[in-house]
Amino acid sequence: MANYAKWDSTQDGRTELHDVLGLTGAEISINNLPAGAGVPFVHHHKKNEEIYIILSGKGFATLDGEKIEFKAGDVIKVAPSVKRQFSAAPDSPASWACLQVKENSLEEYTNGDGVID
Amino acid sequence: MANYAKWDSTQDGRTELHDVLGLTGAEISINNLPAGAGVPFVHHHKKNEEIYIILSGKGFATLDGEKIEFKAGDVIKVAPSVKRQFSAAPDSPASWACLQVKENSLEEYTNGDGVID
Repeated sequence: MANYAKWDSTQDGRTELHDVLGLTGAEISINNLPAGAGVPFVHHHKKNEEIYIILSGKGFATLDGEKIEFKAGDVIKVAPSVKRQFSAAPDSPASWACLQVKENSLEEYTNGDGVID
Repeated sequence: MANYAKWDSTQDGRTELHDVLGLTGAEISINNLPAGAGVPFVHHHKKNEEIYIILSGKGFATLDGEKIEFKAGDVIKVAPSVKRQFSAAPDSPASWACLQVKENSLEEYTNGDGVID
């Protein structure tokens, strides 16, 4: 694979990008849910922090029993142990990118890791 | 900080979320550029893979001298050593989320790391 890879996410349903893009530090799924639909189970993680970037629409998440609402533009970080379930709103579809990264794996970043050429 | 954190990205300019959300496995910046604007320097990274999720609009990136176009919905992975510069198109603003994750830091994921509750 080349040093970069590009993918067009404007597709239906759920797509997992780890293998498509050759990701090595994250898994990213793109999720497109119709109004009223939700992930059909509650789950948590052993080691991975999840970060949800809401791409369009609105919905709600239940996080350790607490219901919070979200809309396009929101970014939500969820610690590994949190029991979570994400849904589109009853009256709106919702799309989000869900990132899995290993908790505490990031070392330096931005000015500490970037080099101006 | 609670086990989750939420942030509304619909703001101008560039916002860095590592400290805002208490991220530990990634840095995420949200970048909103007007038509014709670009990141004003070329850079690469020492250890971090970058993943660009294009949130709206269109633009182009120069990756090790190769120019590629992108539009809303595209996801682009860039290996650490690649010299990169991202810009909005001359006739369109562009917004993207830029993720930094440590290359090769992800271990198990999805079915290997998730637990159904």
